[in-house]
Amino acid sequence: MAETTTTTEEQTNQQERDPECNSLHQPLLKRNRTLSSSPLALVGTKVSYIESLDYEINENDLFKHDWRTRSQAQVLQYVFLKWLLAFLVGLLTGVIATLINLAVENIAGYKLLAVTHYIDRKRYMMGFFLMTGVNFVLTLMSTLLVVFFAPTAAGPGIPEIKAYLNGVDTPNMYGASTMFVKIIGSIGAVAAGLDLGKEGPLVHIGACIASLLAQGGPDNHRIRWKWIRYFNNDRDRRDIITCGASSGVCAAFRSPVGGVLFALEEVATWWRSALLWRTFFSTAVVVVVLRAFMEFCKSGECGLFGEGGLIMFDVSGVSVNYHLVDLIPVTVIGIIGGVLGSLYNYALHKVLRLYNLINEKGKLAKILLSLSVSLFTSACLYGLPFLASCTPCDPSAPLDTECPSTGRMGNFKKFNCPKGHYNDLATLLLTTNDDAVRNIFSTNTPSEYRVFSLFIFFILYCILGLFTFGIAVPSGLFLPIILMGSAYGRLLGMAMGPYTTIDQGLFAVLGAASLMAGSMRMTVSLCVIFLELTNNLLLLPITMLVLLISKSVGDCFNPSIYEIILELKGLPFLEAHPEPWMRNITVGELADVKPPMVTLSGIEKVGRIVEVLRNTTHNAFAVVDNTMVPMVGQMSEVHGLVLRAHLLLVLKKKWFLQERRRTEEWEVREKFTWVDVAERWGTIEEVAVTKEEMEMYVDLHPLTNTTPYTVVETMSVAKALVQFRQVGLRHMLVLPKYHGPSVPPVVGILTRQDLRAHNILSAFPHLEKSYASKKGR
Amino acid sequence: MAETTTTTEEQTNQQERDPECNSLHQPLLKRNRTLSSSPLALVGTKVSYIESLDYEINENDLFKHDWRTRSQAQVLQYVFLKWLLAFLVGLLTGVIATLINLAVENIAGYKLLAVTHYIDRKRYMMGFFLMTGVNFVLTLMSTLLVVFFAPTAAGPGIPEIKAYLNGVDTPNMYGASTMFVKIIGSIGAVAAGLDLGKEGPLVHIGACIASLLAQGGPDNHRIRWKWIRYFNNDRDRRDIITCGASSGVCAAFRSPVGGVLFALEEVATWWRSALLWRTFFSTAVVVVVLRAFMEFCKSGECGLFGEGGLIMFDVSGVSVNYHLVDLIPVTVIGIIGGVLGSLYNYALHKVLRLYNLINEKGKLAKILLSLSVSLFTSACLYGLPFLASCTPCDPSAPLDTECPSTGRMGNFKKFNCPKGHYNDLATLLLTTNDDAVRNIFSTNTPSEYRVFSLFIFFILYCILGLFTFGIAVPSGLFLPIILMGSAYGRLLGMAMGPYTTIDQGLFAVLGAASLMAGSMRMTVSLCVIFLELTNNLLLLPITMLVLLISKSVGDCFNPSIYEIILELKGLPFLEAHPEPWMRNITVGELADVKPPMVTLSGIEKVGRIVEVLRNTTHNAFAVVDNTMVPMVGQMSEVHGLVLRAHLLLVLKKKWFLQERRRTEEWEVREKFTWVDVAERWGTIEEVAVTKEEMEMYVDLHPLTNTTPYTVVETMSVAKALVQFRQVGLRHMLVLPKYHGPSVPPVVGILTRQDLRAHNILSAFPHLEKSYASKKGR
Repeated sequence: MAETTTTTEEQTNQQERDPECNSLHQPLLKRNRTLSSSPLALVGTKVSYIESLDYEINENDLFKHDWRTRSQAQVLQYVFLKWLLAFLVGLLTGVIATLINLAVENIAGYKLLAVTHYIDRKRYMMGFFLMTGVNFVLTLMSTLLVVFFAPTAAGPGIPEIKAYLNGVDTPNMYGASTMFVKIIGSIGAVAAGLDLGKEGPLVHIGACIASLLAQGGPDNHRIRWKWIRYFNNDRDRRDIITCGASSGVCAAFRSPVGGVLFALEEVATWWRSALLWRTFFSTAVVVVVLRAFMEFCKSGECGLFGEGGLIMFDVSGVSVNYHLVDLIPVTVIGIIGGVLGSLYNYALHKVLRLYNLINEKGKLAKILLSLSVSLFTSACLYGLPFLASCTPCDPSAPLDTECPSTGRMGNFKKFNCPKGHYNDLATLLLTTNDDAVRNIFSTNTPSEYRVFSLFIFFILYCILGLFTFGIAVPSGLFLPIILMGSAYGRLLGMAMGPYTTIDQGLFAVLGAASLMAGSMRMTVSLCVIFLELTNNLLLLPITMLVLLISKSVGDCFNPSIYEIILELKGLPFLEAHPEPWMRNITVGELADVKPPMVTLSGIEKVGRIVEVLRNTTHNAFAVVDNTMVPMVGQMSEVHGLVLRAHLLLVLKKKWFLQERRRTEEWEVREKFTWVDVAERWGTIEEVAVTKEEMEMYVDLHPLTNTTPYTVVETMSVAKALVQFRQVGLRHMLVLPKYHGPSVPPVVGILTRQDLRAHNILSAFPHLEKSYASKKGR
Repeated sequence: MAETTTTTEEQTNQQERDPECNSLHQPLLKRNRTLSSSPLALVGTKVSYIESLDYEINENDLFKHDWRTRSQAQVLQYVFLKWLLAFLVGLLTGVIATLINLAVENIAGYKLLAVTHYIDRKRYMMGFFLMTGVNFVLTLMSTLLVVFFAPTAAGPGIPEIKAYLNGVDTPNMYGASTMFVKIIGSIGAVAAGLDLGKEGPLVHIGACIASLLAQGGPDNHRIRWKWIRYFNNDRDRRDIITCGASSGVCAAFRSPVGGVLFALEEVATWWRSALLWRTFFSTAVVVVVLRAFMEFCKSGECGLFGEGGLIMFDVSGVSVNYHLVDLIPVTVIGIIGGVLGSLYNYALHKVLRLYNLINEKGKLAKILLSLSVSLFTSACLYGLPFLASCTPCDPSAPLDTECPSTGRMGNFKKFNCPKGHYNDLATLLLTTNDDAVRNIFSTNTPSEYRVFSLFIFFILYCILGLFTFGIAVPSGLFLPIILMGSAYGRLLGMAMGPYTTIDQGLFAVLGAASLMAGSMRMTVSLCVIFLELTNNLLLLPITMLVLLISKSVGDCFNPSIYEIILELKGLPFLEAHPEPWMRNITVGELADVKPPMVTLSGIEKVGRIVEVLRNTTHNAFAVVDNTMVPMVGQMSEVHGLVLRAHLLLVLKKKWFLQERRRTEEWEVREKFTWVDVAERWGTIEEVAVTKEEMEMYVDLHPLTNTTPYTVVETMSVAKALVQFRQVGLRHMLVLPKYHGPSVPPVVGILTRQDLRAHNILSAFPHLEKSYASKKGR
């Protein structure tokens, strides 16, 4: 399973993993008596090694020198480039989003036109075969691309972005091939009428664009432009990827403020005002680009690209009247949304675990799974409308009048009905998902849909929503949830009809909002996204209420869908809040159960460095200097922390000394630039060191981060975790509490994996028990 | 000047301050060769001692025991209470905001009616005396209340809230008397027609409500209800005050999302998702309350309370058309807004320094200052319209028709004009500020105002905006800036008229937005506030653009107005970003220039504790245990940090031991509860200890916070500052880098004051020079 064997992090015990015993309950971590942590994650339905990111500033001599010598002009270049990148991210995300919409609307549009053509001539079987065939081919294309070229392009990608911004780098997530597959795959999957959206993929595409721009192109064809090199660090990449994610949301919903808030509330782990402002700039650019394209397309040069393929549901013209009595249906929607949302999370979790088992069988299994879902979807979308009966478009008009094709009740599908009649279920099913949302949201149409049709629609999308998400195509979660939610919202609106003044269309909107809050557990960002979708501020208070109730109800049952996916994928996400039992354990106890720490001397033998790098998988080592002070005794000092990448750099560049001595600053500057230091330098296996060189020395001082963050061993894990996450660390040194003769200057190094609740509980099972028994009391 | 002498923080050198040498350039801090830091701030025009807040969890034995024994029911109580408080904060803020609006609209309304009555009869002098007299009395009332009962109620209060959420407690800021004075004073000042808003005061009122609720009532009449006691800590108070501040903004602008974002972007220092959600709940409640009151008032039972006294500027009906060409005027507005905004900040800074000199002269000076501003304002508002010429309301109507009093051009003031004519300057000046904004924002009225009148209006409000803010009445900054900005925006709109399709009213809105961004430097929150005010999403992209340009331009010149006020008041606000030169200095160097640190033994003599408390003003002391280990030598250990408040508690409760021994856990639990530990316990002067007691011992272990956050002395100040601020600390222990015999286990304690750029530069002036010379290169 573990196909890549790149540099890994803190894999403290080296026993071989047996993929068969990898129960999905405890996805990728074993229960040991020692605190072991395996840096493996299930990403894109394959198990990969993952690495943490260096968000901490690595203050070594080279960094300090670089910083000291950076001129005012270079600082300005850097600031300018930051904004330029934010602009480009917005621009490209906007353009790509428009192209995706254009492609989807045209492919799906011409497909549906052809199908309607056959139906009008009563050649139902031909229509069915055409539709199923086209959908089959589109799905096949998407899934082949995903399976063979970029397995990480499956799914929405939002959980991985969330993990990246938390400090976990998922391999092959932001490459050019992933982006390409995501774009084409998303067009295919959405045009194939599958129950999935392009919103999640757009967020991922935005992040890919950001990442590619920041590193100057795809991995193997990077522009080594001097300016771009300023961004060759994890901190700046993090910021620009945040901009990309917001731009993606903005492009998906044409919601600039909602995009910023989505990134803030759901995706980002750290946040600062400057970033708020820069993401806002990116989303503003996206909106301008979308608007420009829509103006251009108004002239009719974009084929069937009508409203721009965005779920624009403008109800600003609808007068929203509600009174205190209307709080009752609103509360009911909220509660149902919360319950259904958490049920959906629960069921989706089960389905995804089942799908993981299927996907593990190989590539063919994945492809067959996607194709069966496609066939089932096509059959349902085409077949179910035959169950619905026909309704006259306008009871007052003569029987053989054509139904209006635009205007108030514009989107009618005649399907199998006689002239002047329409099939309400076909109106909802035989269309693109965006149009389906627009139809079900439509206001002032109290009798357009029958209860029976809406009920079938709801059940169908519950099933499709559960079984479509996990297949190997790019798929977003927003749209399936909106479709489900709007259906039950509208049903509820019909049931409440006599007792309320709120329009059924608004009930559908509230239903969609409540199910999203119940499943995704966002509040403010969803509220703003819905505000920007509906363009009606008067809806705001009831939307807020619905969202608050749904989220509260949902939180009683299970975590949000993104957290469930994160856990399923085994990504070591650090939660914002420490568990209560973490107060009862100290970092010293954690350090004790880890294997003995490896420390290096300030001036170390090459042989020892090679040995340490070969025999451990740690990514950082404490550098300790011991000096004999006359009259006092042995004094030891932690000089700092040196990264594996920098040790590899030294070995590759063979910066060795003949004798044990401290180097001068110019010596290291002659050999290394800060650009070298920012790169990742392969693995120890690629390094060849001769026997003579093994006996030489390396002065680690200039490459050591002299200011690592530290905690004393008496610190509780709860407070250490707060520091770890708030400051954005990768390694935290544990210092001894005692000061005196023969006390080692450092007792351990903690990493993200050591601070994860699950790993701590594996080593200290009594903690959970004591807490659970207290809870049960 | 220093009137209160309560417990102070880290006032390391005890020399008497001489208020006369307190140059306002270096407001309250002296240049010493050692790192001294004076905990003084100029708050409400008087110098006060200020204290830092304990946002860190104080993990001592009592806390741990309390936490361990807290039952599930108590945890639920706590969660329930959190939400109840958020609800109550929203409810009360909404109610009080409505009452303020009601009072202002009625007082100002009847005043203006009476004045109009005299003007209609050409008794201009009577009108003038009436208006000036009423305004004079209202201002006098406000200023008397502020000067004699609550000096901290002057100004907007937003900078102090910002400081509180950053960890600085300003004394007397959130008391019942402050709130009362703020409410009444705000009504008086706004009704008196002064150029100030009720928006800032509403934010402060919201924070006061939150603080009072969380502590169970005013300081001397607190409800000692058991549930409320859970909130007797700085962390929970911080959260609830954040809710209060958002509710205030929401009540001021009827902008729930804007309120949340304002708190997030401008006010709060730390933020977490849970808080986002709770503040959102509070603002939702505010909106519901406001809406309910407005529905109630529609029936006409609220006197002259028409539109609710909120700047509601609904342009949702206006079709906004703009093309790429319109980017030019939009950019121009943005640039002008940025330049004017920073100019305003600069000028206001000068005026406030001048006013500080006047205010220092005593209470009479303050009152006279307010009254002269009131007289000047009244004279201008009444006198200037005589300069404007009359315009016929409707050129097509017969000359003697009455002007319409409602409808499209509804708010006409006839003033000195004949029938059928109106005075455009009187329309803008002889009205409440809210109505003035509504008039100047009005759309589809291209020829309603003359250039001359708008120009006078602009100049007048530039002058008033500068000279009104600093007087001793509750005053907000939002409205003056909106008035100024809208005037130049509309002027620009008239100048651009032939070249653009954007309405003049929208130009006025954009002008107001640009000046706010140029002065306050907010982006996303302002954008959402304007979105919610104007209720038109199509304006969003251009508003975003204007805000971004204005903020960028303004940032080139000076910091935001709130930062300027914070600095003027001497509040030790910790910035998010360390200064670049902070990388060149270590915390060890800072600790070296501080006076020697005071440490206590784990079991300490009462006499020594009393001596230490009397002779220092530190608020926390390191507790160090020394043990002689046979065969190894002297081992020392930092047990933790004990707070001054807890030492005072021990002395007051006389928890003394006859012999030097460690106590059992039950002993301390018998004597103290966690409620005692959360209180602040007066000063050392209030403690009486007999001579025999002086010889007894105290076991400090159970009261010591055993998990203080630490840094090693080699840590750079830049990274230490990041940790200090991110984790929300009050004290940070500095550990030695060497480990060995006779190394002290702790070398210093750093506080907020030690990490402030200004204080560091006083002790290490070369740092700035080296940086400045580099910059100039």
